[in-house]
Amino acid sequence: MQSRTGRIGIIGSGAIGGFYGLMLARAGFDVHFLLRSEYAAVREQGLRVDSARHGQLHLQVNAYASAADMPACDWLLVGAKATSNAELAPLIVQAAAPGAKVVLLQNGLGVEDQLRPALPDDLHLLGGLCFICVNREAPGVIRHQALGAVNLGYHSGPAEDAGQAIVEEGAALFQAAGVDSQAMADLDQARWQKLVWNVPYNGLSVLLQASTTPLMADADSRLLIQQLMAEVVEGARACGLVLPEGYAEHLFRVTEQMPDYWPSMYHDHAQQRPLELQAIYAEPLARARAAGCTLTRMEMLYQALAFLDRRTRQA
Amino acid sequence: MQSRTGRIGIIGSGAIGGFYGLMLARAGFDVHFLLRSEYAAVREQGLRVDSARHGQLHLQVNAYASAADMPACDWLLVGAKATSNAELAPLIVQAAAPGAKVVLLQNGLGVEDQLRPALPDDLHLLGGLCFICVNREAPGVIRHQALGAVNLGYHSGPAEDAGQAIVEEGAALFQAAGVDSQAMADLDQARWQKLVWNVPYNGLSVLLQASTTPLMADADSRLLIQQLMAEVVEGARACGLVLPEGYAEHLFRVTEQMPDYWPSMYHDHAQQRPLELQAIYAEPLARARAAGCTLTRMEMLYQALAFLDRRTRQA
Repeated sequence: MQSRTGRIGIIGSGAIGGFYGLMLARAGFDVHFLLRSEYAAVREQGLRVDSARHGQLHLQVNAYASAADMPACDWLLVGAKATSNAELAPLIVQAAAPGAKVVLLQNGLGVEDQLRPALPDDLHLLGGLCFICVNREAPGVIRHQALGAVNLGYHSGPAEDAGQAIVEEGAALFQAAGVDSQAMADLDQARWQKLVWNVPYNGLSVLLQASTTPLMADADSRLLIQQLMAEVVEGARACGLVLPEGYAEHLFRVTEQMPDYWPSMYHDHAQQRPLELQAIYAEPLARARAAGCTLTRMEMLYQALAFLDRRTRQA
Repeated sequence: MQSRTGRIGIIGSGAIGGFYGLMLARAGFDVHFLLRSEYAAVREQGLRVDSARHGQLHLQVNAYASAADMPACDWLLVGAKATSNAELAPLIVQAAAPGAKVVLLQNGLGVEDQLRPALPDDLHLLGGLCFICVNREAPGVIRHQALGAVNLGYHSGPAEDAGQAIVEEGAALFQAAGVDSQAMADLDQARWQKLVWNVPYNGLSVLLQASTTPLMADADSRLLIQQLMAEVVEGARACGLVLPEGYAEHLFRVTEQMPDYWPSMYHDHAQQRPLELQAIYAEPLARARAAGCTLTRMEMLYQALAFLDRRTRQA
């Protein structure tokens, strides 16, 4: 496999980067992890995933503290927060082989637009939407609770018309590692679909200090989640993207069957990290508004979260 | 004065009942306080108000632990939470002289409708809306930060056509004690006007764990407050009540000039007491909806608060 795919670099090896990187490495791909605070722990103890689906996984991996030390990679999976893309750009460029494919495994809209100007023209840029319940438990230790699929879409690059072939190559790569992956014809559509989940659950987990099980058990929060999901579907439609029939209801049912889960934004807030409000709320709201569509509940959720986020940063 | 007004009873002597009762007693009215948890403290040390407006006030007052011990009162000011009206009814009946005037110094809509069936037909029922920044600091100790006006309106009683005269008598009573008071021609209008303040500030203080100063300092929360105020004005209009021109803007400016203030709902939530959601949110939403008017932000705020309130009560 290695000869066909080449090297895979993982930038930002939190829960997302760590999980997918380990799955790929375990499947025999040549994977290289760029780490920051977890470097020492991973170098000494390797990477560990406690997975409800795949059991206990533990692997010694190629770990780097600096992008300058990494070999040039043909695929780069970026699992860091969208809020840190500006500082990540130089590291991505440094680790990328000529013509490399860079995949932003991040939520929200506009993250590729933001990063693109900082990348050389010969790099392909893709987006990946992860449907997975995964959390970092300790340095180098990841807990995988449920799901795992990655939906990929092409953003931009040197051969726009070859984009879909690259997306399919990426999906095949994940599939070869035992990960469900779908090649999406439209990246924006893929991103709006994931927003149907992120908009209600990420925001409400912060605002109500609640994980998915209590949110799905209360009549008022259930209705509010459904109303927020409907607004996201409406926003996508205003932007010309028709989500699959019954898609919101599908994600609602999937969440009902999930183990109790704290969305990543809850952890970001609890640990006083910046919230991914621009990509998950502000940009979708702005695009819907530009298309003449007001998403009132989503706007109110964004206002409340922006207040909380600003207070954290001022403290 | 006493011969004209007769005895005044204060039922529920928290911050509101304590402040107005003390002002009336200080002005020479014959005031009697029904107390629960604060009985021993007030009986021993009297009632104290630290007022930014009136200075340090301290008075020995007539305190009772039981309504059965009180003399029959001609006016009864009810300062307890609307959430406890069902248990208060028998105490009100016990303390009321024949033909007494009962004033619910409570926020929200429908509180008189709820209490009325439990009162004898010969009692007059009024509502009072307090525009005041006041908090209970310790048993028998009240901190008065700003404002103080009471708007009164008539609800029901033996002589419906004499209602307005009774409201004016009540307003004169407060005025004689140095308290601004307005006789309102329509109680529902008075209650909707107060909701313009309560709906945004009470709810957001709980949801964002924020007092008025930070809420008025942040661009997002400011806009949200204005949008919520506009929804209340719209709800009132749908119910046939036109609030004074610029009323929301007036309350917004007043709040901007207030000292930093934690609304009562914040204290209720912090102390795990039930929130006054029925009167302040559910009833106005239901009335607006019955009039064909959906107040989306207010509904969302209510859903979020209902979730939090239910969780507190389940804990």
